[in-house]
Amino acid sequence: MARKTGSHGEITGPRIRKVARTLFARHGYAAVSMRQIAAEVGVQAGALYAYTPDKQSLLVSLMREHIEDLLALWAAEPVITDPRARLARFVHFHIDRNVDQAEAIFIAYMELRNLDPGNFAEIEGLRRRYEAIIEDCLREGAAQGLFRHADARLATMAVIAMLNGVMNWYREGGRLSRDEVARTYAELVLGAVGATGD
Amino acid sequence: MARKTGSHGEITGPRIRKVARTLFARHGYAAVSMRQIAAEVGVQAGALYAYTPDKQSLLVSLMREHIEDLLALWAAEPVITDPRARLARFVHFHIDRNVDQAEAIFIAYMELRNLDPGNFAEIEGLRRRYEAIIEDCLREGAAQGLFRHADARLATMAVIAMLNGVMNWYREGGRLSRDEVARTYAELVLGAVGATGD
Repeated sequence: MARKTGSHGEITGPRIRKVARTLFARHGYAAVSMRQIAAEVGVQAGALYAYTPDKQSLLVSLMREHIEDLLALWAAEPVITDPRARLARFVHFHIDRNVDQAEAIFIAYMELRNLDPGNFAEIEGLRRRYEAIIEDCLREGAAQGLFRHADARLATMAVIAMLNGVMNWYREGGRLSRDEVARTYAELVLGAVGATGD
Repeated sequence: MARKTGSHGEITGPRIRKVARTLFARHGYAAVSMRQIAAEVGVQAGALYAYTPDKQSLLVSLMREHIEDLLALWAAEPVITDPRARLARFVHFHIDRNVDQAEAIFIAYMELRNLDPGNFAEIEGLRRRYEAIIEDCLREGAAQGLFRHADARLATMAVIAMLNGVMNWYREGGRLSRDEVARTYAELVLGAVGATGD
């Protein structure tokens, strides 16, 4: 029977990505070999190399996909003019979209150290575009007298770190729903930047 | 000439710890072997095992030392009664004490996944004691009507994540001094918990 490369590829691609994501998050990129990923997927190492040229390409494609998805999803959200409401919405968006992707967030931050310089620049550029969502809110809000005039770049770093922290401890079915967590974090974030009541 | 084991041990101990810290932070605990640490220190693997029973013990001792040092240093600080002033002081303390220890902070958070259950419980307990510094401030402040009544545990997680984020990007000699960063973060943290002006 002829091997159906097409359908095989379609099934294996997502599976390879899922396995790589889990192994990288659990053991760290440097400790995981292509052979290990192949074994876990249940294919020969050769089949893995048919999918991706090397481990570095696999890592960078996982990171790229994660941020590009977030950017596309945010771009598809309705436009919110008020910087306070937009910032609050972003807090909900970021938590909602990442709480099920703890591994991806973990890799996105932890494995920057393992990116080749060119890949690092690309991923860093995507991250800056994503963080600009926050930074633009802060600058606009400050210009409109709605937020405290603070160092927008610094405040952005603070906000993103605070939000990403959620993915380290949040577990579905725990004490708080993700919506309750997001509401509290929106309040914390708006307070941090000195938002005035609306 | 007789080998001076005593003085040798005194020199090698801190050197082993420093090398292990750097290698764990750079490559991840799982990717680093005892042999590699020994080679980098410039001793035989046997000498390493004379210092520590295994890699897990080395990891947990690095993590323990980092948090215990922080706890001891904070305990030696003058007592500050006002929860707002104490929280602001803690922000300065945490940033000051950790900015030169980016590797230790990185390991403290990233390698929890690699701790044996008993070790995990011990380190988690120490972390909770450290985070209680923040949580106590928040509860006292809320009780005194100085902070917004929020979920103190959640707000503590938000604050510690925000502060630890600094260690990912702060570089001495950059755009901002550590004191400027700490001042801005103290303002962000106090704003986040809804501190009233004093």
